[in-house]
Amino acid sequence: MNISIIGSGNVATQLGKAFQKAGHTIIQVISRNEKTGKELATKLKCIYSATYNGLKKNDNTIFLIAVKDAQIAEVANALNKTNSFVMHTSGSVGIEVLKTKFKNCGVFYPLQTIKKNRSINIKNVPVCVEASNLKTEQTLLQLAQSITTNIYFLNSEQRLYIHLAAVFANNFTNHLYLLAEQILKQNHLPFDLLKPLIEQTAKNVSAASPFEMQTGPAMRNDKITIEKHLKLLTNEKELHQLYKLLTDSIYKSHKKQ
Amino acid sequence: MNISIIGSGNVATQLGKAFQKAGHTIIQVISRNEKTGKELATKLKCIYSATYNGLKKNDNTIFLIAVKDAQIAEVANALNKTNSFVMHTSGSVGIEVLKTKFKNCGVFYPLQTIKKNRSINIKNVPVCVEASNLKTEQTLLQLAQSITTNIYFLNSEQRLYIHLAAVFANNFTNHLYLLAEQILKQNHLPFDLLKPLIEQTAKNVSAASPFEMQTGPAMRNDKITIEKHLKLLTNEKELHQLYKLLTDSIYKSHKKQ
Repeated sequence: MNISIIGSGNVATQLGKAFQKAGHTIIQVISRNEKTGKELATKLKCIYSATYNGLKKNDNTIFLIAVKDAQIAEVANALNKTNSFVMHTSGSVGIEVLKTKFKNCGVFYPLQTIKKNRSINIKNVPVCVEASNLKTEQTLLQLAQSITTNIYFLNSEQRLYIHLAAVFANNFTNHLYLLAEQILKQNHLPFDLLKPLIEQTAKNVSAASPFEMQTGPAMRNDKITIEKHLKLLTNEKELHQLYKLLTDSIYKSHKKQ
Repeated sequence: MNISIIGSGNVATQLGKAFQKAGHTIIQVISRNEKTGKELATKLKCIYSATYNGLKKNDNTIFLIAVKDAQIAEVANALNKTNSFVMHTSGSVGIEVLKTKFKNCGVFYPLQTIKKNRSINIKNVPVCVEASNLKTEQTLLQLAQSITTNIYFLNSEQRLYIHLAAVFANNFTNHLYLLAEQILKQNHLPFDLLKPLIEQTAKNVSAASPFEMQTGPAMRNDKITIEKHLKLLTNEKELHQLYKLLTDSIYKSHKKQ
């Protein structure tokens, strides 16, 4: 397939590379950010345009809008009306933002934490697909199948819940790693200490439920240890509050059952 | 070495198995819980005793106290005074609890989430060692070296901070997996969707800092997405509060820099 990429950030870069590797032709990169736009176009060996005026018109092209969520509507507005397939890649933005203008539109949401410079194993990344009609659905399915074995057809509401769950499982989790690292750093202890634990914690849920795998003072309601920890956090208001709230939540979840 | 295990829970079971596999002799299991105590003794092919009266006296034995944190003092109190090596396995309890009674005492804290029935790769588990004297330190080091390549000498205060950091990196993280699973379940979506994301999130910090790997609406200060998510959580007071606090914490951490 022929693909035009709008955007030059993390998702644009990794999807662009994956599509190209799968044998598709990347026609062009359109990005307001000249530096990253040109970088991506160079990487994908295609032409670069800073404006939609420079956009190559091609009815055989899939337009992939991979920009910040807040800018999708703006991009949709700026694009000319077309019968080409137009899709965005956001978990939290509905298909509606494209539907009024583009007959053949859809969403292609890769459920993974994606950074430009960190290679990912795209083959097991779940891709959530939604389309305005059967023809588009078939096209997006083919496109998804060319890069992953893990495809879900979901509507915009389901996708929003998945995005919310992903914020808990990734954004918040990664931030807890950062807070743990800070606690260690302040005490001149290496973060390496925690890496086998972090790895095992994630590995555990592939085989058992998180409920089953919970350990620690909160689930045991071990008040002495909890108090010791809270004392260490006396001068860290935010960490203190987070510790209490999460401890309370763990206790309630495990008491219920 | 000869080892007597006091306790029959998760840590007693996994360390007992690891020590035996490394060629040490498990002399006995002492546990007030007859069911799990007998089970562990059977697993380790050694004798079982429900009381300290039944304890085999052996000056060549290492006594491994692997009971709940709150019970360590009680066990220390109940044991006869001895010149044998006496150690506990807790991250949050100081060496002091053993020092007044036992000349050769120490702590042997495996920094990993340990469940009885889930095998762990003990070889890369960091073991934090503390000892009352050089002779004990050498013995605990030898014992640690027989099961892992990852050994740290740390005092009780450092260990408590590590334990606190581990609560953030494991207990809280695993609970976030549970909350994410609940959000999906309530919407009839499979938890499997999140497993590649969870795996990748943990993998990322082995190569890059959590700061560098952060993604998502909070760090971008994407208020529209944050509001959409909070709206989904309107009737989930606890999740709503957690979402806000963690989002705020991420934003502050990334704004600072």
